[in-house]
Amino acid sequence: MSDVHSQTLPFAELVQLLQQIFQRHGASAQVAQVLASNCATAQRDGAHSHGVFRVPGYVSSMASGWVDGQAVPVVEDVASGFVRVDASNGFAQPALAVARPLLVSKAREAGIAVLAIRNSHHFAALWPDVEPFAREGLLALSLVNSMTCVVPHGGRKPLFGTNPIAFAAPCEGHDPIVFDMATSALAHGDVQIAARQGQPVPPGTGVDREGQPTTDPKAILDGGALLPFGGHKGSALSMMVELLAAALTGGHFSFGFDWSKHPGAQTPWTGQLIIVIDPSKAAGNDFAARSRELVERMEHAGVTRRAGERRYRERARAEVDGVKVGTEELDRLRGMAV
Amino acid sequence: MSDVHSQTLPFAELVQLLQQIFQRHGASAQVAQVLASNCATAQRDGAHSHGVFRVPGYVSSMASGWVDGQAVPVVEDVASGFVRVDASNGFAQPALAVARPLLVSKAREAGIAVLAIRNSHHFAALWPDVEPFAREGLLALSLVNSMTCVVPHGGRKPLFGTNPIAFAAPCEGHDPIVFDMATSALAHGDVQIAARQGQPVPPGTGVDREGQPTTDPKAILDGGALLPFGGHKGSALSMMVELLAAALTGGHFSFGFDWSKHPGAQTPWTGQLIIVIDPSKAAGNDFAARSRELVERMEHAGVTRRAGERRYRERARAEVDGVKVGTEELDRLRGMAV
Repeated sequence: MSDVHSQTLPFAELVQLLQQIFQRHGASAQVAQVLASNCATAQRDGAHSHGVFRVPGYVSSMASGWVDGQAVPVVEDVASGFVRVDASNGFAQPALAVARPLLVSKAREAGIAVLAIRNSHHFAALWPDVEPFAREGLLALSLVNSMTCVVPHGGRKPLFGTNPIAFAAPCEGHDPIVFDMATSALAHGDVQIAARQGQPVPPGTGVDREGQPTTDPKAILDGGALLPFGGHKGSALSMMVELLAAALTGGHFSFGFDWSKHPGAQTPWTGQLIIVIDPSKAAGNDFAARSRELVERMEHAGVTRRAGERRYRERARAEVDGVKVGTEELDRLRGMAV
Repeated sequence: MSDVHSQTLPFAELVQLLQQIFQRHGASAQVAQVLASNCATAQRDGAHSHGVFRVPGYVSSMASGWVDGQAVPVVEDVASGFVRVDASNGFAQPALAVARPLLVSKAREAGIAVLAIRNSHHFAALWPDVEPFAREGLLALSLVNSMTCVVPHGGRKPLFGTNPIAFAAPCEGHDPIVFDMATSALAHGDVQIAARQGQPVPPGTGVDREGQPTTDPKAILDGGALLPFGGHKGSALSMMVELLAAALTGGHFSFGFDWSKHPGAQTPWTGQLIIVIDPSKAAGNDFAARSRELVERMEHAGVTRRAGERRYRERARAEVDGVKVGTEELDRLRGMAV
């Protein structure tokens, strides 16, 4: 699957390369391992806006002193269904990794549990956080707020972040059902990629610095803003993400931090909420069979692609052929590792 | 505020009238009280698609033998964060009313708790279910699936219900922040009202029986179907509602029941999920102050209407002037009460 513009390498090799880069640029071994695995997973699954494309942003954010790559998360066991983590100005994923066993054991015991991560930086896709719960037979819902770049419906100025919502559920005989959606009309990473490729974005995606509708990704990034998806409904969901991922966790709102004194900083300093439910507590205890029934009925109704299917297909391909990375990009990465 | 087409009456009088109607048509005193209060609340708050407009549908559904107006809900205390209710083929609201004290006490103790209602009929707005939690300082998220009338994104045939999501959160010094959104482009009740008034619905709302886009509400109701809001994202949320409100509760999917042998049946026989979170467990314990901050920042960004504000305004007006009901409608209601 390599061509003149790209190469393939085994997943483990990509993880190792990325881990070297993150450690070389200020992350502890543990943090580097979590970020490398996360980033390589996105690249492997074809989620390129959250793949190796993100590495320079991670590195410059650490270099700027904005985020602490050595941070040690502090887990607080608050109640039988409530876990808090102070990510100590580090990345959200290592905080999740540390708190995860307690969260899972509480969810299995109480039927539902919530993890509230604060003082954290989330710069990745959200589906890698929720999919593993579904592989253990649990349901997971996660919300993260980001940085001001979305105009609330009916407003004139940006306030919300792209504020994604991700959901994962087991499905009998199949990979889990997983979705991960920005509550903005387009994810920020996709706007950046469109800008880099000189491609327009769909109408309704955003506005320029004068607040006028535009399909130019550069105008959206350069003083403009995104719009919520689906008008007032997407905007209400984005507001809910601010309330749950920031107000409820104790993290910053998307407008609540100032990185202007940290040139190179790109990672939003906010919070993340994860709700995990154990469906074995449900009446009938046949959740996975019923979710399979739903998926099959969706196919009968003409839906040709399951939630998460494209990623699973890319993943299967990468297991055979290796993970595809652009040749120039791979050269740059190798240069960053030494 | 009465005119030739409408009259006003005190809220308590409307509740009493509706309670008489529901009892006269097969509901137990307890069920009638809950439904009457719910329905009068919607009418009072200007949510007319779920106000007295719904009464004939409640009555014909009970008369058809489809829903049991005398049902006694059975509460199951499953785990420290998980409560189940078998609504016994009755309405969802009385089931919530019976399970509510246990749900609230679990949420306060565990930090989060879930109520899974199955074997239930929900024919009302969803915001009256969540708003009271926020008035007690709690956060609430609820999902209900309904009956097949929405074509999944990318599909050809209807499968999902209008599947609303409602959310409520306390806000210091203000009424709670509350939203209630169908995951369809328009709520079913609003399509019915448009059809009755001979008004077109917005483009993108639905398709006719041939699957062609239409703005004719009658064509949508007569063999056509609704579309999800916001394309594939709204569709994914609607799928999540099927999974959480039906598969997780043990209730029917929106396509999982057949009311064809019950002419007059209008109430979907499905399930409902309610997640309640106690923000006093959050870091900083200042949720309501932070939600106030968010709302104020939204106003500074130019948002002129708070979530739920229109209802609160109508409510305040009704407290002074009484609840407005169409004159013909009120005559019909009075006729149904005897």
